[in-house]
Amino acid sequence: MSETRSPVVVIIGAGLIGASIGCALSTAGYAVHLRDHKISHAKVAAGLGAGTIDPPISADVALVVVAVPPGAIPDLVVHSLQVYPNATVTDVGSVKAGVLDTLWQRDVDLSRYVGSHPMAGSHHSGPVMAHPDLFADRTWVVTPHRRSAAESVERVRVAVRACRAREMIMDVDDHDAAVARVSHLPHLMSVLIAGRLTAIPEGDLRLAGQGLRDVTRIAGSDPMLWQQIVGANSEAVLEELRGLQDQLGMLIKAVEATPATDDLRSQLERGVAGTRKIAGKHGAAAVRYSEVVVAIPDEPGALARLFGDVSAAGVNVEDVSIEHDPVREVGYLSLSVAPEQAGALVETMLAHGWTVS
Amino acid sequence: MSETRSPVVVIIGAGLIGASIGCALSTAGYAVHLRDHKISHAKVAAGLGAGTIDPPISADVALVVVAVPPGAIPDLVVHSLQVYPNATVTDVGSVKAGVLDTLWQRDVDLSRYVGSHPMAGSHHSGPVMAHPDLFADRTWVVTPHRRSAAESVERVRVAVRACRAREMIMDVDDHDAAVARVSHLPHLMSVLIAGRLTAIPEGDLRLAGQGLRDVTRIAGSDPMLWQQIVGANSEAVLEELRGLQDQLGMLIKAVEATPATDDLRSQLERGVAGTRKIAGKHGAAAVRYSEVVVAIPDEPGALARLFGDVSAAGVNVEDVSIEHDPVREVGYLSLSVAPEQAGALVETMLAHGWTVS
Repeated sequence: MSETRSPVVVIIGAGLIGASIGCALSTAGYAVHLRDHKISHAKVAAGLGAGTIDPPISADVALVVVAVPPGAIPDLVVHSLQVYPNATVTDVGSVKAGVLDTLWQRDVDLSRYVGSHPMAGSHHSGPVMAHPDLFADRTWVVTPHRRSAAESVERVRVAVRACRAREMIMDVDDHDAAVARVSHLPHLMSVLIAGRLTAIPEGDLRLAGQGLRDVTRIAGSDPMLWQQIVGANSEAVLEELRGLQDQLGMLIKAVEATPATDDLRSQLERGVAGTRKIAGKHGAAAVRYSEVVVAIPDEPGALARLFGDVSAAGVNVEDVSIEHDPVREVGYLSLSVAPEQAGALVETMLAHGWTVS
Repeated sequence: MSETRSPVVVIIGAGLIGASIGCALSTAGYAVHLRDHKISHAKVAAGLGAGTIDPPISADVALVVVAVPPGAIPDLVVHSLQVYPNATVTDVGSVKAGVLDTLWQRDVDLSRYVGSHPMAGSHHSGPVMAHPDLFADRTWVVTPHRRSAAESVERVRVAVRACRAREMIMDVDDHDAAVARVSHLPHLMSVLIAGRLTAIPEGDLRLAGQGLRDVTRIAGSDPMLWQQIVGANSEAVLEELRGLQDQLGMLIKAVEATPATDDLRSQLERGVAGTRKIAGKHGAAAVRYSEVVVAIPDEPGALARLFGDVSAAGVNVEDVSIEHDPVREVGYLSLSVAPEQAGALVETMLAHGWTVS
């Protein structure tokens, strides 16, 4: 930014996201003014160091961040463009095209609007858990459009970096298609699966395990919020839903054909490949194990003693196999463990006097 | 059981489930004999106290537990009925009708077969993590059929109770329909959603969050195993898939109509209701909060000090609101927390000198 004084920011909506942006930007030297129709939220956010609840001088405001529920965003962006004549206005909603479409229909200075979307959140909605590090190392998408002024884009990008997020420039429609794929479609599938549970015999749930809870967890989210999100991104969501409809049809054919074809198997394998793609991107455990091989005297009691020591290492052993060396009269126990646990297992076994290869 | 000596059990398949049953039944006083085509698995299980690898006298065997992958179950049940002439045979597969159908087509003594299905498992497959308590307080379904001898049903039920599981008697078809609903359909949806990730732009995954990981986690399971499970339960699974197809069609209509109807909202709300049904059954957190109201002097610094103390309590505050009492010149801060955390919060606040109502 070109200003030498502290850049003045207005944050509208002092929920978790807005208050955290306030904390991060205040820490970075911005002069942050907070607004929320719940005055208690704004006060709490101010108390946490997110900024002040005093109003700014309108002409001084360089940046407005609209951090309210999706349905309220377009009007507040229009309002902000009108009230703060020199400000760049961004919003942090999870769908971007609808806001822009609304702005095209209003008599506002579109060049000063640049949408954005920080990939941070939680099921907490109030400001109490606000934290200046909420966005650190998280992706924060910035979605310029063809009327955005370069200076406006730059102001938003500087603010994103001030929040220590990883900025990612995307086209508005590409962004909305992406969130439809990785967020909105999975959410709606979770809703459908959870919804079916309302109509099954009570006893069936005694047969449910962790898998069902995982698949349905996000279906417990606020329906009003999700009605707004899906409504705002209906075009991209419909494309995903129709694509899924086609694939569901293919899956049904594959199951009908069982066991005549390997089509079901290849669909199951495609699922595994998909989970590995996320794992690679997000650091969740990919299903690959390290082998730790321990030599064991081929005598009674040795195996029990060895497993006692493995158990003491506190690692999860995924699989095991034993091979015998007929010449040296010794056995080898091969233990499959998560790669990050292999080191600890080796150390423990060595410490207990076992020979590890 | 009527035997006065230790009842003799053969467990075929010394993986996690088979070895754990061996440990539980050995603990309960059964004489357990272990068989596995991987001799190392049987040896490891024996080393963990699951039984012996010595062969039994066939005529002495009272119970055979077939604990192998689904595709291998029918043949091993038939084999067991033939080899152990006085034994009741059960299997622990997750689908029951197919095994029974196979038996009807073979020349075997059906009265001695009673299927069962323990609701315990993990992503571990080998015997190393076997534990006699694996089934404690877990549901274990027993599925008698119309030819099952009363004595056979009783032998299986006694063994289930010996494993300290909660027995549940179900009709074979009801069981298969139930697992199709609470396990197989959610699994296949997870597979479809994960599978779509293989065909999206790389950058899209930077926008993914915990929700996507939750929904797709089980899709990472062994495709060969799941091909067998779905194949064995294809009829019930197809009914669920077609039901989901209908509901997906309705969801698409609801999204197409957005924002004209509240149909989408009611589908989202049905999902929430479904998650509450599981929560109620399994003890996961239902979304209901307790309010803790703290009186605060309406003066600068009080709020920050109060939040410092709330933070020290280590509870997750879900939402907050402030109300002022204009007469007494005091404020009230209302904190929403999970019911089980409310007590700790109240104690901490009192310990720090706050007035809690």
